[in-house]
Formats: sequence, structure tokens, C-alpha cells
Amino acid sequence: MPRQGGHVSRDFEAELRELRGHLLAMGARCERAVHLAVGAFLDRDPQRVSEVAALDARIDRDEMEIDELALRMLALRQPVADDLRFITTTLKCVTDLERIGDEALNVSERVADIALAAAVPPHPELAEMSAAAQSMLREALDAFVERDAARAEAVLRRDDEVDALYGSALRRVFEWMRLHPDEIPVGQAVVSAAKYIERVADHATNLAEQVVFMVRGDDVRHQRGDRDPGPK
Amino acid sequence: MPRQGGHVSRDFEAELRELRGHLLAMGARCERAVHLAVGAFLDRDPQRVSEVAALDARIDRDEMEIDELALRMLALRQPVADDLRFITTTLKCVTDLERIGDEALNVSERVADIALAAAVPPHPELAEMSAAAQSMLREALDAFVERDAARAEAVLRRDDEVDALYGSALRRVFEWMRLHPDEIPVGQAVVSAAKYIERVADHATNLAEQVVFMVRGDDVRHQRGDRDPGPK
Repeated sequence: MPRQGGHVSRDFEAELRELRGHLLAMGARCERAVHLAVGAFLDRDPQRVSEVAALDARIDRDEMEIDELALRMLALRQPVADDLRFITTTLKCVTDLERIGDEALNVSERVADIALAAAVPPHPELAEMSAAAQSMLREALDAFVERDAARAEAVLRRDDEVDALYGSALRRVFEWMRLHPDEIPVGQAVVSAAKYIERVADHATNLAEQVVFMVRGDDVRHQRGDRDPGPK
Repeated sequence: MPRQGGHVSRDFEAELRELRGHLLAMGARCERAVHLAVGAFLDRDPQRVSEVAALDARIDRDEMEIDELALRMLALRQPVADDLRFITTTLKCVTDLERIGDEALNVSERVADIALAAAVPPHPELAEMSAAAQSMLREALDAFVERDAARAEAVLRRDDEVDALYGSALRRVFEWMRLHPDEIPVGQAVVSAAKYIERVADHATNLAEQVVFMVRGDDVRHQRGDRDPGPK
């Protein structure tokens, strides 16, 4: 493949646009999958589970297609500097996006555990956690395609908020389990759903860290605590 | 940087060796972190937690150093074909390795929840899960540096074994929680530890999938079920 001349360069720009567009479309599907899955859980509605599964399968295909395009661009275009960094960051980011799809599927699969339960522990935090996680995901991806480190850093600051909600949800469910020892698996389904949503926010945080690294070259990934907030 | 001549090519081979060596060293540290953390949990020994934290910090640095080397090689050497694929796969694999370090840290942080507890639910599965996850990790990395797809596929087949142990551990702990409703948080610490170990095996499975993809070009990543085995 010849690298000189304007033709290849225009092709390269078109491929970069395709990569960006596909990444944003994948991100939108991830956001929708989380929204649907958490909605199904909150409404205890098993009907919507298959929709989440279909979306997750599409997200899995997105990952493969984006990886393939990025690898082709690296092999044939041999990009340098900002373009190289954008493409390698894309390779890393699709992994987190794909796992957000998995977390959505995991949430939806817990619906069966609570759909027919006589009682379910109160879980007012879940809707708020889910909204925050979705917004963090959207912001991280916008920051990515706009190479906006400040916007990505704003996402990083929001992870603690989701962790605090998670801690509060756990305490509430544990108290409920103490009073309903025969319903431990029902309580556990809520704990699991909360944990999966908390992980969506973690993945969005990972995305945002990659964006700061891409734009600034600062490696913020391990300057922050990235521990599990744990069951306390 | 000139690309012709034997000098650069020898440098490139040396860099590839450095990349492989660093990746294997990082993998060995991950394995040791899991071993230490699960040991601390099984022995309810909070003394070893700081050792796991130090190892996790080293693993975080490994990720940054390996990423930096891989990016420099992509930028300056413009590798193609097998070398390109090896380097991009490395970029993806270090992410899973780094998260294995996080999971080890998460396990070690649950030690505090059980260290002083009057009673702890039986959890005979955890040691076996941990041994399997560590062995899967080691095999996946060996398969990676040896570009051995068959060996990586053998790792994929072992994930179900860990999932089954996880399911058995959960059922046992739930039954204990039902009988000890005032000790729900202690039971939950064991559930969390089991989950973190199960995730180590998931990360090893992700590594193995990447290896098969690298060697064969087959994308096995989404031909298998990669759902959470869940609290059933």
C-alpha cells in the first residue's frame, strides 16, 4: 500500500472518522443496555431480558469490528503521534465497553431471582447509581473523541459518588437480610445487581483514565485508589 | 529513526524479548499476589495485607511500563504482521493482568471483615478456586509468549470448573447466613472473596481468548458464554 499522495491520507481520515463513529455507537449501545437492564431489574420484569441479551451480542460484535479496523489501520497506515495514540487507546477502551455490556447482561439475569419473590429488599440507590454510571460512560466517550482531558477528569471525580451509593445500598440490604434470613438469595440478587452497576462506573472511570493518558501523557491510572469499595 | 539495516532489527528483537520478559514477570507477580491474598484470607491473617498492596502497586507500575514500551515500539518500529499483533495483544493483556492485581487486593481487604469474627462460614472451595485460577493465568501467559493456541484453548475449558466451585461456595455460605442472620456481613465477606477469585479466572480466560485470536485470527472471544455464573 503506497503511503504517499493525498489519496491514502484522505482514506486514513475517513477510517479515523469511522473508528470514532463506531466507538460512539458502541458506547450508546452500552448505555442503553445498562438502562434497559436496570429498568428490568427495578420493575422486576423478565420480559426485557432478551432485549438486553441481543444488545450485548451486538456490543460483542462491535468490539470485534472495532478491533479489526484498528488493527488494519495500524498495519496498513502505520500512524504516528496523536493518531497512533488514539488508535491504541481505542483498542484498550473497547475492552471496557464490551465488559459494560456483560455487566448489563449480568444485571438482567438477576431479574429471575427477584421476579417472583414475595418480598424484595428496598434498593432506592440502584436507580441513582445507574443514572450516574450511564452519564459517566457518556461523558468519558465524549471526552475521548474530543480529546478533552478536563472533561475526562470530571468523570474520575464522580466514581466516589457511585461507591458511596453502593455502600449505602449494601448496608440497607444486609439489614433486610438479617430480618429475612429465609430470603438471603433474594437479598443477594440485589447485592449482585448493585455490584454490577458499580462496576459499570468503574469501567467508565477506566475509560476516562485512558483519555487523560492519551491527551496529557500523564498516567493517572494508578495515582487514584482503584480498590473495590467492598461490602462495608 | 532509520528502519533499514541490521542494527535496528537487532534492537527490535531485543525490545520484543524485553516485552515478553516483562509480561511474564508481571504475570508471575499477579500469580503471587493472588496466592498471598487468598492465603491471608484462608488463614484470617491481616499481617499479609500490606504485602499484597505492595505487590499490587508494583503490578500497576508494570502496566504503565509495558504500555510505554509497546507504544514506543509501535511508534518507532512500525511493526507488521505477527509482531504487530503480538504488541497490540500485549496492550490488551496487561489490562487484564493489572485487574488481577486489583482482585488480589480486594480479596486481601476482606480479611479485616473476618479476622475477628466469632464464626466464619465454611469455604472449602476457595483454595481450589484460587489454585485453578493461578494455574489458568500461568498457562495463558505461557501460551501467549509461545504463541500456542492449543494451550490457550485448554485454559478456556477450565473456566466452567471455577464457575461450578463458585456456585457451590455460594450455596454453602447462603445456608450458613440463613442460620446466622446476625453474621450476614461475615458471610458476605466470603461471598465477595469467592467472587474476586472467580474474576481472576475470568481475566485468565480473557487472556487465553486474546492468545487464540492472536495466533489463529479466530475471534473466540464471543463464541463462548461469558456471563457471570451468578449467585445461583
